[in-house]
Amino acid sequence: MTPLALVITTRSGPGVLHVVTGIIAAHSGDITSLTIVESSRDLTRLILEVSVQDAEALLADLAAAEPVTKVERVATFQHVFGKRVIIMGGGAQVGQVAIGAITEADRHNIRGEKISVDTIPLVGEQALAEAVRAVSRLPRASVLVLAGSLMGGEIEKAVRDVRAQGLTVISLNMAGSVPDASDLVVTDPVQAGVMAVMAIADTARFSIGRLSKRVF
Amino acid sequence: MTPLALVITTRSGPGVLHVVTGIIAAHSGDITSLTIVESSRDLTRLILEVSVQDAEALLADLAAAEPVTKVERVATFQHVFGKRVIIMGGGAQVGQVAIGAITEADRHNIRGEKISVDTIPLVGEQALAEAVRAVSRLPRASVLVLAGSLMGGEIEKAVRDVRAQGLTVISLNMAGSVPDASDLVVTDPVQAGVMAVMAIADTARFSIGRLSKRVF
Repeated sequence: MTPLALVITTRSGPGVLHVVTGIIAAHSGDITSLTIVESSRDLTRLILEVSVQDAEALLADLAAAEPVTKVERVATFQHVFGKRVIIMGGGAQVGQVAIGAITEADRHNIRGEKISVDTIPLVGEQALAEAVRAVSRLPRASVLVLAGSLMGGEIEKAVRDVRAQGLTVISLNMAGSVPDASDLVVTDPVQAGVMAVMAIADTARFSIGRLSKRVF
Repeated sequence: MTPLALVITTRSGPGVLHVVTGIIAAHSGDITSLTIVESSRDLTRLILEVSVQDAEALLADLAAAEPVTKVERVATFQHVFGKRVIIMGGGAQVGQVAIGAITEADRHNIRGEKISVDTIPLVGEQALAEAVRAVSRLPRASVLVLAGSLMGGEIEKAVRDVRAQGLTVISLNMAGSVPDASDLVVTDPVQAGVMAVMAIADTARFSIGRLSKRVF
């Protein structure tokens, strides 16, 4: 199966997506994502990531379909932006964790990896709990770092939920119940960022599962 | 039209997406994105963002469809992560721009905005040009900051292309032709990050278009 990323321009109108997904289903293509990047009265531009046996045949059928005006092959987000470290919490700490993570990602990306560092400063238990839960739905998110001074309650529940779904969670050493609910607790925010990148880098010899100690 | 984000669990198999998009087309729903977050031999979990007149009727028809086993309503990425500042380039500079952008985003998010700061440290003209072009395809990306010491050639062309598509580009003051191709040139990386956030925040009184000077 060849992974393809396509930018497809179509006329606008109800049912256009249905036609496009129908063509892909006919080729037994496996769609991994589809985003409408632009939609005016006349034209719609969509990005499709799909894996398929016969890329050329699919491209030809898409280009020939009635609603389609243009099909363009582009780089996949996995190829360009790779795995994602997600950092959230208070602005002061998120910034310091980001410094560590970006510097470490730089060292791995130079050796051929692709690791992105994505952040959002947020305040409030509900907003943070909602954002933690949303990470499990983010494409290519591999590890979450919670960076703050006090987190518990709903955020702790959200951390337990996303860990149960397979996400690795690193917490700064802070007040509240979030550190107890996390895979790893780190006191220095720069080191927390570095460790988050090490945990997901294929070029690093580091595995959280193999640590004998969980608090640093 | 109500914007909805749904997590839909279905049986796995070719054509399932075609069924789901068919139901949405029948409700004149406007799909903005669709991502397959998990796909095993038996089950597929997909996230759908869609705007529709009658949300309850769509939810009922989706839940009743043959391949669907569960429909769950969640928060949209726009609601949780909001607009995105994208920073790319050398690790040292990307980290400093991130510090400025995260600190400034914190101040706006406290006042009710949602602004994320997403970064990738990269080396090399081709990798950077490819990443710049990919930003125009990233959902919710509002402004790009190029943070490095030397950028030109293919990167300059990519900057001109994405600006023509409506993206705002801020460049650090650096060697090469990228600063000349950008909307704004800033010498201090922390200030570049702050200005990037100010440029997209609804709570800021700042507009790059209204500046009489383009280099700081």
